[in-house]
Amino acid sequence: MRYSNYFIPTLRDIPSEAEIPSHKYALKGGYIKKIASGIYDYMPLGLRVLRKIESIIRQEMNKNGAMEVQLPSMIPAELWQKSGRWSFYGKELLRIKDRADREFCYGPTHEEVIVDLVSNNIQSYKQLPINLFQIQTKFRDEIRPRFGLMRAREFTMKDAYSFHADQETLETTYQDMYAAYSNIFKNCGLSFRVVNADSGNIGGNASQEFMITADSGEDEILYCLKCSYAANVEKATTIIDNKTSVAMKKEEVHTPNLKSIDELATFLNASTSTFIKALVYQYDLMVKKDLLESKYALIFIRGDYELSEIKLANHLNSLNLRLANDEEIETQLKAPAGFLGPVGLNSSDNVLIIADDSIRGLTNAIVGANKTDYHIKNVNAKTDYTISKYVDLKTVREGDTCPECKKGQLKKERGIEVGHIFQLGTKYSDSMNAIFLDKNGKEKPFIMGCYGIGVGRTAMAAIEQNNDDYGPKWPIQIAPFEVMVVQANMNNEDQKKVSEDIYKQLLSADIDVLYDDRNERMGVKFNDADLIGAPLRVVVGKKAGEGIVELNLRDGGKEEFAHSDILNIVTNKINKLKGKTT
Amino acid sequence: MRYSNYFIPTLRDIPSEAEIPSHKYALKGGYIKKIASGIYDYMPLGLRVLRKIESIIRQEMNKNGAMEVQLPSMIPAELWQKSGRWSFYGKELLRIKDRADREFCYGPTHEEVIVDLVSNNIQSYKQLPINLFQIQTKFRDEIRPRFGLMRAREFTMKDAYSFHADQETLETTYQDMYAAYSNIFKNCGLSFRVVNADSGNIGGNASQEFMITADSGEDEILYCLKCSYAANVEKATTIIDNKTSVAMKKEEVHTPNLKSIDELATFLNASTSTFIKALVYQYDLMVKKDLLESKYALIFIRGDYELSEIKLANHLNSLNLRLANDEEIETQLKAPAGFLGPVGLNSSDNVLIIADDSIRGLTNAIVGANKTDYHIKNVNAKTDYTISKYVDLKTVREGDTCPECKKGQLKKERGIEVGHIFQLGTKYSDSMNAIFLDKNGKEKPFIMGCYGIGVGRTAMAAIEQNNDDYGPKWPIQIAPFEVMVVQANMNNEDQKKVSEDIYKQLLSADIDVLYDDRNERMGVKFNDADLIGAPLRVVVGKKAGEGIVELNLRDGGKEEFAHSDILNIVTNKINKLKGKTT
Repeated sequence: MRYSNYFIPTLRDIPSEAEIPSHKYALKGGYIKKIASGIYDYMPLGLRVLRKIESIIRQEMNKNGAMEVQLPSMIPAELWQKSGRWSFYGKELLRIKDRADREFCYGPTHEEVIVDLVSNNIQSYKQLPINLFQIQTKFRDEIRPRFGLMRAREFTMKDAYSFHADQETLETTYQDMYAAYSNIFKNCGLSFRVVNADSGNIGGNASQEFMITADSGEDEILYCLKCSYAANVEKATTIIDNKTSVAMKKEEVHTPNLKSIDELATFLNASTSTFIKALVYQYDLMVKKDLLESKYALIFIRGDYELSEIKLANHLNSLNLRLANDEEIETQLKAPAGFLGPVGLNSSDNVLIIADDSIRGLTNAIVGANKTDYHIKNVNAKTDYTISKYVDLKTVREGDTCPECKKGQLKKERGIEVGHIFQLGTKYSDSMNAIFLDKNGKEKPFIMGCYGIGVGRTAMAAIEQNNDDYGPKWPIQIAPFEVMVVQANMNNEDQKKVSEDIYKQLLSADIDVLYDDRNERMGVKFNDADLIGAPLRVVVGKKAGEGIVELNLRDGGKEEFAHSDILNIVTNKINKLKGKTT
Repeated sequence: MRYSNYFIPTLRDIPSEAEIPSHKYALKGGYIKKIASGIYDYMPLGLRVLRKIESIIRQEMNKNGAMEVQLPSMIPAELWQKSGRWSFYGKELLRIKDRADREFCYGPTHEEVIVDLVSNNIQSYKQLPINLFQIQTKFRDEIRPRFGLMRAREFTMKDAYSFHADQETLETTYQDMYAAYSNIFKNCGLSFRVVNADSGNIGGNASQEFMITADSGEDEILYCLKCSYAANVEKATTIIDNKTSVAMKKEEVHTPNLKSIDELATFLNASTSTFIKALVYQYDLMVKKDLLESKYALIFIRGDYELSEIKLANHLNSLNLRLANDEEIETQLKAPAGFLGPVGLNSSDNVLIIADDSIRGLTNAIVGANKTDYHIKNVNAKTDYTISKYVDLKTVREGDTCPECKKGQLKKERGIEVGHIFQLGTKYSDSMNAIFLDKNGKEKPFIMGCYGIGVGRTAMAAIEQNNDDYGPKWPIQIAPFEVMVVQANMNNEDQKKVSEDIYKQLLSADIDVLYDDRNERMGVKFNDADLIGAPLRVVVGKKAGEGIVELNLRDGGKEEFAHSDILNIVTNKINKLKGKTT
């Protein structure tokens, strides 16, 4: 490709909305253009990256026996009503009426469509397992689209769905997909970590996320320094080991004008970890299909932990929840907000009391007295209050103990979720009544898995993981071009002859090359080359007449070579770059 | 690919809605599955065909200097309002509101988006010409989706848009695209005809359609038996040569109870070609952006011709028109429907009179008397009525004279429009104020071309052109598989050994092969093979033990070969099939 014939509409300035490197460089480098909030035109340069990622994905999926299909973006509402998600999914689902006033949604995910397809066309266990995938445009009407393609509304996703007669084959396919995903991100030249994950509103049992590690990542990962445990903070757990001491007699204390746990801890000269904090949430519970009821939950958690709203939402099986206000608290609990505690409060029809396991075994705790300006010291379970069941609702912190090896400390890092694999089980088959006949001719619901990769997000994550102050440093496997040939002076005949020759040599060797043949200053050409981020750059400059050119690596370092050697040198470097990245 | 691991959900019966072969076989053969009216799941088999067509398209577009982009399917209403098409496009445009109540449409075509993109990013004639294309999902909310992918609502289209500083480079690119399209359909192994076409609501000047010829085609083509003229019936013209005779004096005749031109002709013992027929249409005229007014048109046309509503709509520049009813006619023209004629009627503010050129030079015509139950004989222009301008509004017929060589007779055939190339001119640049700076630093609107191919429709047209009573006979270039290996008896060890060996040999030679290894009866396997339509079929049957297999051609004929020769034979056949199809 010759730059003079190519369309790379770069920007002089970075739009102020771009906060993270990938968003900045994707816009400045002319990879994408924004057309509306969360909606982008993919420019030739950006599309090259996406297509390379897609082709790596396709190859691994095919290799693992998945078959490519393409499902429509316009999905009839009936299917989503059948699964129950039509009323459950909220405003992220873009709802559409056609000319005949029939309701559709623009598919944000395709469980319903694929379940419908498979259950209409597969009757027997003999036809199972089957794994179908597509690479397709989806739409999610995000309330706050941001970071360019990282959280766009219209985006490209690879989604796969597998159907099984039993849990064993689901687990086999799940492991195949685990391996396929590992290969995909490895073949993209990216560093990643696989973490245990929350299944979110897709539902199901086991699920793991593939995280591209990067400081700017939106997700928090906790991983063990001693064993292989790693989990999204939304899912991470820990071991709670409250030191027991001799139970003392409870005692009411006057605590006027003290708002926070920290203030109380200072005032009472106690650690925040001796407190039982109380939080009240309002949430919507689906009592029947399409019937939501408003409920409240009162959560007790140790004073030094934060509540995870995602864990709470999963526990309550509710998508909609928010902190209750003081008035609601006083109406529902007949006790003042800010002074709630477990002594004397019980679950009711409207209010569910839940205890995080961080308070299990806590002796001589400090709790709210359910009375304005009063707390109670030395409160103990069984003696002073009863909790029948403890659950995990806390946000695990760096330094907490690993739940798996029970020895290592957890460490935090940030990542970008680019892939997600799920063992769905029968969630959708049950709600949509999708059945097959088993060996004994008995009707059984399909057991399902599903497996997604954000294609655009993978491209953006690659930039987040690989960039400097001048632009992206693409892994060679997904770089828009592997090599750039930069001719310093377009009026120099020697340079022209050498550049043209090298360009043609590289093309003939099937190397993905962009030849900057524009009549621009050297500084402009170098800046643009940095934005394009090809791993290798052949600079044809002043020594062209002597048959000498320079090879620059985007990642740093340069060396001079004879014009006649350059094809060999470049070929070797490419092979090395492809091999060495893991 | 092994059939036993592959998902081809065939149907026993053809759904009754399928009327044409491509629709029947696409459903019966498990290529596509309907999910809603005009909306389909693409199954693995169908997607293979589409992907092959897409890759042929992509190759030719790249070769001709077009650059691939991807534009969003969700288009902000503002862009369509700017071009004026938001109010003009009607219900085929699927209008959508997002969660913030902002208006969008699901792109049925992308002129607005691309004009916005290019005008924001190209300032100078130096950056022109440029040609951008995409292969993408579009949505048109057809009032009557039909014939499967032939007229679907959600469909895959290749659309390209070129931008130019002058008409000359537009014409060059247009010719390049003409050549590219010719190669594309040739490389798909299809017979086609290029015809002059109506530009429809895309607008613009010159345009040509690429028609796959097939008896079941929705489009009528007229082509000259003597020269290269060919046109869509919507656009076809002819030469009118009304024999003049001595003008006679006009004479009123009583014509009671005679409704049709045929009845009148019999009654008056005259040819229908001596009549001037009158038709009245109501139409909506855009008088300002977003302001439509209701108008009427009275058209005079020779009695033996039919009016082309498409030509009329273009002439009136109106998308919405219909025949006026009797009441409207009497109110607007103060004359009775069924007896309208040119004598004494004139255009008014509300009624435009238009004459088709078939009545130019017609002497002693018979016309309505604008009086119930009366006609007038021997009516002549100038003497009896005045027409200032003649236009072409007629539907040209088989047997009419070619307008180009002015000698040959026109012949009719049917075709399926799969491609369309347009010289758009400045229609969109003008309305959207899209400008660049020319050599002299002067602001000029971009001159545009646009070029579309229906990908799914091309696949369906391939079936229409190539099928028999058992299924499609795919051209090898776009067949889902090039070769099928059919093992007759799965329990026969010789057959198994030979089949496996041939399958592996073909795979290693990079031949696209499907091995039917299912435990099914021979009849079932052969029926399915016919539906899959691979051009070559290797049947491993009773003579496998002797090392003999059969090669069947989907298009007819079979021969026996030695097992050891089969790879060579198949390779040669494939090359021959790829070469011979034109």
